[in-house]
Amino acid sequence: MEARNLLRYTFFLFFILLLVLFTLSNLPSPPSDKAEMLNCAAYSPWCTSKNRIQSKKPDFLQKPTNPTRRRHSADVPHHPLDPLTVTELNTVRKIIQTHDFFKNKAYALHSVVLEEPEKKLVLRWKKGEPLPPRKAAVVARVGGASHVLTVDLGSGEVTRHETGHMSGYPTMTVEDMTSVTWAPLASADFNRTVVERGVDLADLACLPISLGWFGKSEENRRLIKVQCYSLKDTANFYMRPIEGLTVLVDLDTKEVVHITDKGKNIPIPNAANTDYRFAAQNSYQRLVNPISIEQPKGPSFTIQDDHLVKWANWEFHLKPDPRAGVIVSRAMVRDPGTGEMRNVIYKGLTSELFVPYMDPTDAWYFKTYMDAGEYGFGLQAMPLDPLNDCPRNAYYMDGVFAAADGTPYVRSNMVCVFESYAGDIGWRHSESPITGMEIREVRPKVTLVVRMAASVANYDYIVDWEFQTDGLIRIKVGLSGILMVKGTPYANMNQVNDQESLYGTLLSENVIGVIHDHFITFYLDMDVDGPDNSFVKVNLQRAYTSPGESPRMSYLKAVRNVAKTEKDAQIKLKLYDPSEFHVINPTKKTRVGNPVGYKVVPAGTAANLLDNNDPPQKRGAFTNNQIWVTPYNETEQWAGGLFVYQSHGEDTLEVWSNRDREIEDKDIVVWYTLGFHHVPCQEDFPIMPTVSASFDLKPVNFFESNPILKIPPNVESDLPICKADASA
Amino acid sequence: MEARNLLRYTFFLFFILLLVLFTLSNLPSPPSDKAEMLNCAAYSPWCTSKNRIQSKKPDFLQKPTNPTRRRHSADVPHHPLDPLTVTELNTVRKIIQTHDFFKNKAYALHSVVLEEPEKKLVLRWKKGEPLPPRKAAVVARVGGASHVLTVDLGSGEVTRHETGHMSGYPTMTVEDMTSVTWAPLASADFNRTVVERGVDLADLACLPISLGWFGKSEENRRLIKVQCYSLKDTANFYMRPIEGLTVLVDLDTKEVVHITDKGKNIPIPNAANTDYRFAAQNSYQRLVNPISIEQPKGPSFTIQDDHLVKWANWEFHLKPDPRAGVIVSRAMVRDPGTGEMRNVIYKGLTSELFVPYMDPTDAWYFKTYMDAGEYGFGLQAMPLDPLNDCPRNAYYMDGVFAAADGTPYVRSNMVCVFESYAGDIGWRHSESPITGMEIREVRPKVTLVVRMAASVANYDYIVDWEFQTDGLIRIKVGLSGILMVKGTPYANMNQVNDQESLYGTLLSENVIGVIHDHFITFYLDMDVDGPDNSFVKVNLQRAYTSPGESPRMSYLKAVRNVAKTEKDAQIKLKLYDPSEFHVINPTKKTRVGNPVGYKVVPAGTAANLLDNNDPPQKRGAFTNNQIWVTPYNETEQWAGGLFVYQSHGEDTLEVWSNRDREIEDKDIVVWYTLGFHHVPCQEDFPIMPTVSASFDLKPVNFFESNPILKIPPNVESDLPICKADASA
Repeated sequence: MEARNLLRYTFFLFFILLLVLFTLSNLPSPPSDKAEMLNCAAYSPWCTSKNRIQSKKPDFLQKPTNPTRRRHSADVPHHPLDPLTVTELNTVRKIIQTHDFFKNKAYALHSVVLEEPEKKLVLRWKKGEPLPPRKAAVVARVGGASHVLTVDLGSGEVTRHETGHMSGYPTMTVEDMTSVTWAPLASADFNRTVVERGVDLADLACLPISLGWFGKSEENRRLIKVQCYSLKDTANFYMRPIEGLTVLVDLDTKEVVHITDKGKNIPIPNAANTDYRFAAQNSYQRLVNPISIEQPKGPSFTIQDDHLVKWANWEFHLKPDPRAGVIVSRAMVRDPGTGEMRNVIYKGLTSELFVPYMDPTDAWYFKTYMDAGEYGFGLQAMPLDPLNDCPRNAYYMDGVFAAADGTPYVRSNMVCVFESYAGDIGWRHSESPITGMEIREVRPKVTLVVRMAASVANYDYIVDWEFQTDGLIRIKVGLSGILMVKGTPYANMNQVNDQESLYGTLLSENVIGVIHDHFITFYLDMDVDGPDNSFVKVNLQRAYTSPGESPRMSYLKAVRNVAKTEKDAQIKLKLYDPSEFHVINPTKKTRVGNPVGYKVVPAGTAANLLDNNDPPQKRGAFTNNQIWVTPYNETEQWAGGLFVYQSHGEDTLEVWSNRDREIEDKDIVVWYTLGFHHVPCQEDFPIMPTVSASFDLKPVNFFESNPILKIPPNVESDLPICKADASA
Repeated sequence: MEARNLLRYTFFLFFILLLVLFTLSNLPSPPSDKAEMLNCAAYSPWCTSKNRIQSKKPDFLQKPTNPTRRRHSADVPHHPLDPLTVTELNTVRKIIQTHDFFKNKAYALHSVVLEEPEKKLVLRWKKGEPLPPRKAAVVARVGGASHVLTVDLGSGEVTRHETGHMSGYPTMTVEDMTSVTWAPLASADFNRTVVERGVDLADLACLPISLGWFGKSEENRRLIKVQCYSLKDTANFYMRPIEGLTVLVDLDTKEVVHITDKGKNIPIPNAANTDYRFAAQNSYQRLVNPISIEQPKGPSFTIQDDHLVKWANWEFHLKPDPRAGVIVSRAMVRDPGTGEMRNVIYKGLTSELFVPYMDPTDAWYFKTYMDAGEYGFGLQAMPLDPLNDCPRNAYYMDGVFAAADGTPYVRSNMVCVFESYAGDIGWRHSESPITGMEIREVRPKVTLVVRMAASVANYDYIVDWEFQTDGLIRIKVGLSGILMVKGTPYANMNQVNDQESLYGTLLSENVIGVIHDHFITFYLDMDVDGPDNSFVKVNLQRAYTSPGESPRMSYLKAVRNVAKTEKDAQIKLKLYDPSEFHVINPTKKTRVGNPVGYKVVPAGTAANLLDNNDPPQKRGAFTNNQIWVTPYNETEQWAGGLFVYQSHGEDTLEVWSNRDREIEDKDIVVWYTLGFHHVPCQEDFPIMPTVSASFDLKPVNFFESNPILKIPPNVESDLPICKADASA
């Protein structure tokens, strides 16, 4: 028995040695230079992979060089809400480097953004006046703890705030996300199983997956789960999951805490027809002639001082934000009667996303992403593709963010602004054959779109703020990109007995598109003609006539209810108990005495159906209603809480709203959640056609009358004379 | 006492005489020539009114002459579904004129359209083959009775169908609608009260208002209610109601049956700021530079043989229809794999509209319009305004309809077809900073729009059928035009104690916008890869895990239920009990075994809340669900019944569906109702900015994968080089 055990031991040692050698020989070297961390080619295993198809684009696909590349080293702030400039970020970095609290400590800056001045200071400020003191709001991890600090750029002073006793961690840094994808390779077990599954380690592509919170095991330690894919023969590795292999990693130490290795019987789906890149197609299909939005006199908008957008009757401040993506502030519309610019929104942004997947099995149950608070919705917004993401004549705005060490970097072309004309009609009337009058008056609808596209790993979220000349603002979210799919032994539905056990749809051989939801919660600090507003539910109720009163038995009446406190404004939409949702200024009335207002107009959406006691839903409780209204509070901006990563849900919009504070004639914030149920279908494979949903903010007795009565119609002589590019 | 009575009598006679003289002197002469009935200037009292502002358009507003004016005298049908041509309509007219049944009788033709050949004949037909026999479906009123006839154009045979014992009358003729507006002037009482209210009879504009059915008083006689407005100082007479004055008129004899004369204390609202015409503005406001959709190589669609639209991967037959507006038939999309054209829709159309107003008082309770069946949705579609209703490069299709005597006439530019590009994204993916791969693949979204705008008196309905290259069809309805408003003594809300008693919103001094709903019901004969389909409700249900099974407590599962009979497919949408609605071909599966299908995707909509026993709702019972599915039956096309005017509701979609016929694996028709609640606001005065809602038909496992994977991105060299028109 002894000898036999020794033999076993020797064999085991030999095997381990082999594995380590194998691993080392297959392991690409990790990045060495921190400054290069944001340069793909320097650190990404798959960026430089042999599988990347070299760009062999036909001539017509050669992209123009970035039309708007700007230098930012000389940027200076012009407006109290302007984001921190490169110079200011460098100042913050230096202040922190030399500050006692940070000196000689390992630290990482998870967020460095402008600490916006108090609202009243911003409202009071006028162009030409000196800016209020410039301050940075910094979230830092120092010595294993999270801190919220204010850095005064003028004085160099650092104020440290209490982080409180809330659960949760700050948004990951890009460095967190990228470096953790390397961590599994330090585990021989991991490497062995990958190789055993037939994947070359050099073909690995791994994703950092936030793991939510389900109890003790996700507490007191910053953790993440890493799952991997095979990049072999396709850039679309997302379609080639190594199913069931989940590596739990400590985000701070990068230590592999645990490996779950299930699903070894599940083949890695093959790569055929998964690569969506144009250069990877062996043929292409031109379905339509070139088409373009053209403005012979150029666009009608201007961007003043880098961030102030002026277009038609609108003006607003626009800035990229690492967490929210874009922030629209001080949106004002011109009154056609008085000519004055009237306040509509003080600040609007994407506050949080919640994306629960509907598969309770081991490798999937925890996928309940909060893309803004966990990954940084703005951090994930990559440069837009001119002529495709945005039409000709678009203006591109860069994001200026800080890396984990405080170094500023530029995310170029992160946001675009353009005018859109789809052939739609602003208003029209023809007289009918009944009256026979010869009237045909039609005005085209032209809008201004602010767009950002965030690629949170596989998914692409296109967020549009669309301004109309009639005062309407449409906030639209488009979903495209690539599904997060699950490997399966099944190659055909005829092998499946119970379709529901798939938790999704068989999209291709061995590929399941798992059912999931998307919720996108918007923060809308409405200031309709001033900060103090009220929220009015205008409920449409069936009313009955008295016997003999009318040949009609029933009709609808509009019953107005002013919300006194927050709980009055926790709204679940009901098709059979409909309401309009008005934000009014109770102190300002139109000529004939209606309160001026804007209404929130929901359109198609989806509600969250998870159980309220389910741990993910406690964290995502901000999606329990479609509409909430809270009194303005500068600390309540992120619907899932400031520190949403691994949070338990003690700091959500629901918690705040349940305090039931007074909201009548107060500075109020409206929250709207847009939802999607996504049952994938084969058309979503290997990349999804865009699906969109939206809601509107619409003037309701805000103007005395139709504000675009006097706009002219299009006439031929205004329109451009165009010819095809000679080179085409 | 005797003498005093005589005096009274003499005075009364004298007064009547005066009134008659006054009336005659103020009465414009009615049209004499029937042929001119469709020419505004010849017969309309307000068309030639002194109040019409002469067109003094600035030079840049001079419209080009109709770019597509076509002669139709030589049109011949090319396709079994092509509408009747001018020649064919003349043939029908002659056959009827000389037919025994009509000879020497007064008759009116309420509808003359192609009687479409049996579906199987159409499906079998191939281009180049002779057409199936051409027949006309004729609805005629002969001797006070309604008749449905088939006229065989080849043989000259007339087959008369049973009209049955259903209540209701055919769609009004244009002649009915226009001539009845004169009828009140034959009443001295009417004229007196008009004059007493301070309105010059020459300033009168009157509208024919369908009165629905509320019991005995709306039975056995074709009736209509006429209400009038003052045209003085504005073309927008709709904003100047003579409130409370309702004239009940016999539609056949034009006899005034009854006058209700209430509301004499209600002033006629003044005309200030109501005229929306560009020429009537004393100034204009150019908010944006000219903008245009340009295609340097021209549009990508072709119209073959006048009615067959071919664009990108789509092909469909398109025709104007006097009742439905437009009919889209045989919509097929090309499979990118096999190249074959695959059936999606056999026939789609706007089946009926229902527009109940929410005011139970005397002059308003009956306003419960069914615009297609009562007024003819297509009859009310006026010529589109090039460059404003539709962008440059649009193709305009004319409607060819028959007047009441059978004479064909042309409604030019009634439908347009154009390509739209709004700057939207077909699909996209960027690799995120997490993976760092340098991928940015984006494809622009270009669509094809078929548009019609029906002006049913005050309201304008813009109906779009929008085809996407990814296989999606969006059916969108835009509402614009002018509100139907109510006069009121109130000039300010501070005079109003009970806002609900207004039944609407005070829009301007003495003008109330009355609350109302719009429902638009679409008929969609889906033929997904063939006629026999099934309807599957894919219900998303909250499911619970077993204790210990997963850290997750709940998730959503998709439960498929195939509808066996019609009642299984009577769908009320529920946000908290959501489903997808698939129309599948149960005999055809994808490579991996999913049934091929299209889904109906609702978006924002409104439900009908009237009591089911309310008489209008009995007639509008087809709006009791958002979705219905019926087995194909060629007699079931109009959701409110064939003869909807004054009908009692015995022939609606609800009645048909409640037969609960089998619908599994049958040729089925899907009905979708789009709804709007409209609580007017001041921005809707004096003309409404367009409000839209839509629903989609979307491929769901219809294609093996994303059908537009291989389309190329835009590149600069494809796009046009444009300059401003030198004359601008």
